[in-house]
Amino acid sequence: MQTRIGIMGYGNLGRGIECAVKQNDDLELVAVFTRRPPETVKVLTEGVKVYRADDAIAHADEIDVLILCGGSATDLPRQTPEFAQYFNVVDSYDTHAKIPAHFSNVDAAARESGHVALISCGWDPGMFSLNRLYAGAILPNGKDYTFWGKGVSQGHSDAIRRIDGVLDAKQYTIPIDAALDAVRSGNNPELTTREKHLRECFVVAKEGADTARIEEEIKTMPNYFADYDTIVHFISKEELVRDHSGIPHGGFVIRSGKTGWNNEHSHLVEYSLKLDSNPEFTASVIASYARAVARLAKEGATGCKTVFDIAPAYLSPMSGEELRAKLL
Amino acid sequence: MQTRIGIMGYGNLGRGIECAVKQNDDLELVAVFTRRPPETVKVLTEGVKVYRADDAIAHADEIDVLILCGGSATDLPRQTPEFAQYFNVVDSYDTHAKIPAHFSNVDAAARESGHVALISCGWDPGMFSLNRLYAGAILPNGKDYTFWGKGVSQGHSDAIRRIDGVLDAKQYTIPIDAALDAVRSGNNPELTTREKHLRECFVVAKEGADTARIEEEIKTMPNYFADYDTIVHFISKEELVRDHSGIPHGGFVIRSGKTGWNNEHSHLVEYSLKLDSNPEFTASVIASYARAVARLAKEGATGCKTVFDIAPAYLSPMSGEELRAKLL
Repeated sequence: MQTRIGIMGYGNLGRGIECAVKQNDDLELVAVFTRRPPETVKVLTEGVKVYRADDAIAHADEIDVLILCGGSATDLPRQTPEFAQYFNVVDSYDTHAKIPAHFSNVDAAARESGHVALISCGWDPGMFSLNRLYAGAILPNGKDYTFWGKGVSQGHSDAIRRIDGVLDAKQYTIPIDAALDAVRSGNNPELTTREKHLRECFVVAKEGADTARIEEEIKTMPNYFADYDTIVHFISKEELVRDHSGIPHGGFVIRSGKTGWNNEHSHLVEYSLKLDSNPEFTASVIASYARAVARLAKEGATGCKTVFDIAPAYLSPMSGEELRAKLL
Repeated sequence: MQTRIGIMGYGNLGRGIECAVKQNDDLELVAVFTRRPPETVKVLTEGVKVYRADDAIAHADEIDVLILCGGSATDLPRQTPEFAQYFNVVDSYDTHAKIPAHFSNVDAAARESGHVALISCGWDPGMFSLNRLYAGAILPNGKDYTFWGKGVSQGHSDAIRRIDGVLDAKQYTIPIDAALDAVRSGNNPELTTREKHLRECFVVAKEGADTARIEEEIKTMPNYFADYDTIVHFISKEELVRDHSGIPHGGFVIRSGKTGWNNEHSHLVEYSLKLDSNPEFTASVIASYARAVARLAKEGATGCKTVFDIAPAYLSPMSGEELRAKLL
């Protein structure tokens, strides 16, 4: 079965979806929707049309799954329930604390219209969430640890850029080896925010700006930096472009737990990602779940789903027989 | 919902199931079945009765899920289809090459009787299989690597014990760090059997036995050792008991893949286990899937399943709301 994919929003994630679709023979990109003037957007895939976001609904019949590539702050809370009225959709909504409310809005829309909507798909939320669920169900007597990085945090980079005198910046979140080692020892340590991650910032200051004041403002910024050990480097615009243009990320989900009649045996389950491109990996996860959503819709399923609700076999292009013979 | 568990076969795995049930408030052990004289089998859980294996069917009404703890060589190919006629069942059938045939036999029996049967549950097959599926679906342009150990291989230990002059033996399978590092480099190396694992053997020889001949027989044994670098230590019975009585195991499933329009970005997905007790961890996986099987049966599902067919949410005692709020 060929699954026809539409992309709503053509930024880093949208381009990542396009690349992922290219790698999957059973997926086919049929349309890209954008809020920019369509004639200014050049896509990579030959023959694929670019349309105005406002015209998307007119193309509902041509698309099996619409992938929503907007941001979690303002785009997705509005877009996902809206488009779930007309399409099967997948989003990567990642504001963890507001997922229950988003789920409820999207579920109502998707049930009403008879579509399948998958929210919060990617790696965290997404693959990391799955690993927390599996390992927690297997080892109920245990403790979960999630570490992020080494990788670029867009939110922290943006926060630095808002400081007066800053021209540009990149912030890396870095898990601290000593904390990882303590977790892997199986002793279930209690770790503070400061003990788990450090933050390293590469900052381009405006000509003549007071770098000591900028460094102080970064290091004391509440929520973003105050609870962490933070390293600040001032570099030139050229160095930033040359050495810090990538969007790498990754991290670790570790569960440490005990089994045995008297909890005498320790076990460690560790899942880790090392990603050259955060948006392309997120897009690759979404592409495999778009396949699952198309299959579920074909079976008559409706409503909002998360990665927790979808049996793994739906993600693979292989048949049940192939999966059992080759991967089990 | 309380799920009533029966255990068929009370060896290392059966005892592991008993310990796992104790850790899960919604699971309850109601019966242990054994081929030994029941009066000679003492279980750990107060009030749980031990019955003859042949009497199991008479207790079908008291049990929601029967967990089959026999071996893959001769027990499970016969037992799983047989008991799937009367019970929802879970087994840990691990002869990878014969899984398709086993699936087909069990599926026929379970469909006919209207039960749910889950086969090949544990960590490999099981959690490792799941990770091969997920990572392969996400990164179709990539390569899978599975490493086992450091851990005790029962099959290889048994093979050594069959050599003339050997009193007892333990064999450890050890992944080779250089191979792991090569895989983690993202270069997708082709690795030979010898490059991936080494085998370390601790052997107790009979008084007066020719240890040089034993060592030679081990190192040249086809299938088991000939394709590996093998280290043989001769030790005393006391040392074997003191230092090698545990059943640790573990391993790594790694997928290395590329994304991007020109495959310009590398990604590494790694899942690893470090287990003090192989049978207790396997049992803990099975216990969480027994919960899933009971739920699926209650929903009216029938037939044979594998870990690929079961949505992750079924494994957890938490509700969908709780999972989304706490783990997503």
